[in-house]
Amino acid sequence: MNKITQTWLGAYIDSVNKVLSECEYLRYTDCYRDKVIEAEKYSVSAGGKRIRPVLCMAFYDLFGGREDISEIASCLELMHTFSLIHDDMPEMDNDSLRRGKPSTHAAYGADVALLAGDGLSILPFQIISENALAGKIDLKTAAKLTQVLSEAAGHRGMIMGQMMDIYSEGRANEVSVEFLTEMSRLKTGCLLRASCLFGSILAGADDSRLDNAAEYADNLGLAFQIVDDVLDVTGDEKLLGKPTGSDLERNKPTFADILGIDKAKKLAASYTRRAISAISLYQGSEFLSELALGLVDRKI
Amino acid sequence: MNKITQTWLGAYIDSVNKVLSECEYLRYTDCYRDKVIEAEKYSVSAGGKRIRPVLCMAFYDLFGGREDISEIASCLELMHTFSLIHDDMPEMDNDSLRRGKPSTHAAYGADVALLAGDGLSILPFQIISENALAGKIDLKTAAKLTQVLSEAAGHRGMIMGQMMDIYSEGRANEVSVEFLTEMSRLKTGCLLRASCLFGSILAGADDSRLDNAAEYADNLGLAFQIVDDVLDVTGDEKLLGKPTGSDLERNKPTFADILGIDKAKKLAASYTRRAISAISLYQGSEFLSELALGLVDRKI
Repeated sequence: MNKITQTWLGAYIDSVNKVLSECEYLRYTDCYRDKVIEAEKYSVSAGGKRIRPVLCMAFYDLFGGREDISEIASCLELMHTFSLIHDDMPEMDNDSLRRGKPSTHAAYGADVALLAGDGLSILPFQIISENALAGKIDLKTAAKLTQVLSEAAGHRGMIMGQMMDIYSEGRANEVSVEFLTEMSRLKTGCLLRASCLFGSILAGADDSRLDNAAEYADNLGLAFQIVDDVLDVTGDEKLLGKPTGSDLERNKPTFADILGIDKAKKLAASYTRRAISAISLYQGSEFLSELALGLVDRKI
Repeated sequence: MNKITQTWLGAYIDSVNKVLSECEYLRYTDCYRDKVIEAEKYSVSAGGKRIRPVLCMAFYDLFGGREDISEIASCLELMHTFSLIHDDMPEMDNDSLRRGKPSTHAAYGADVALLAGDGLSILPFQIISENALAGKIDLKTAAKLTQVLSEAAGHRGMIMGQMMDIYSEGRANEVSVEFLTEMSRLKTGCLLRASCLFGSILAGADDSRLDNAAEYADNLGLAFQIVDDVLDVTGDEKLLGKPTGSDLERNKPTFADILGIDKAKKLAASYTRRAISAISLYQGSEFLSELALGLVDRKI
């Protein structure tokens, strides 16, 4: 990733982090009533690459947007954080560490974590609708964003991907690359696609631009997941902030497992090329190209 | 409840049940991928009084609405069902029975139940936004409904009520009537209020009508919760479909406990009177008055 891309990326991340840390919606006091909001804030503040809001803002800029959309962009991080909290729960992956810190249920108990995930799944819709009613975004845009986000995160999107993930556990030897591809499209791809569409919709992009954004997102999502699987085998535990080999231990099928590390890396590179070519016709697409390349080369 | 009210109520319930049973959003196949949707449908179909959609439709009719709003009204039942599924989970109330049938986690496992609740918390926003984008409701109405529902169900509404409920467990001797009133306002009151506001907003009601609807809802909600507490002590297990005395067993504070059965019943009656007087100036309010009286006299 070159210097300009890094600076640009840093600016995006800073503006999302600022919104998330100052967000009125996540303000809490010491009162027990606010414990769920405190747990939400804990989880949202635990770091992370902020890739979803970054994609939203980058597509907004690519397609000529001129306003500050970081609050709307942060909705994608809130929805993502909801999925992480519930995914870590004892009845799901039962992970007690996330990004090197106790996961939400380990820090606050499973009951509070359950409610914190619930709160974060609903909050984005409140933020979008209140922005619309305050005249900050127009009403049709708000309806589109609500539709895109609810479909992407819902039971035929991200949640269906989680269901496939549950099903796949203990079936490492039974499932195919096609199964993994579909699971990845749903589990991580849908929300990445929503992120790219968010920025495009906010910028008033036409259908062909929306198609290109979706094409970039779909390919990036697959590359991203494959790299994730590879890192679970080859990654540095200290950098990742969680133990490696967890997929293997649970007998969960992964791209690395089925294809082998080398082939998996090649497949990720091929999806990345496709992602880049989907947007290469647009002036100013270098940031998104570099971002895609950076995500394949990442160590965490 | 008189014959006319019963017939009217039956017609409302039938139309909600028809929407819920035929709902495309809840259609599933035998495939493992659809297991979450199957669990959602199981839970939504388990019966219940459909009080929230009924309130929505009744206020819509009271304020002069003329269309079929049962699909939008059903969103309130979906959101309510989400809260029931998660409330029954092992880390929350750990109830294995709901309305005489295995609760969702008992029937489908805690992992699928977690995801089913998640799916139902997001689905209402998809239905509202898709209705708006299809031109069935206008865009401003959709934004208002989304705002009202997300705030009511969110971490300063229903979810905060659940947090108070967690906190209250084991503290039966410490908490006051004021605490219980606030907990009830949040835990059940917020969504009842949203239900009454939904119908009013859909009918294009002005602010003073919205205030009256909210006043009716707030008082009805308190009456409803107090009766619930009384039934947990005096109710018929067979009719209720769950064991009585569960609040006592968990050392959970209730209105029945703190006030005694007689005083609690009187308090419920007083809130019911206030609910009725909030809407008595409107022609056609008899149904909502009778409904309020019926809810206080209910056996389940």
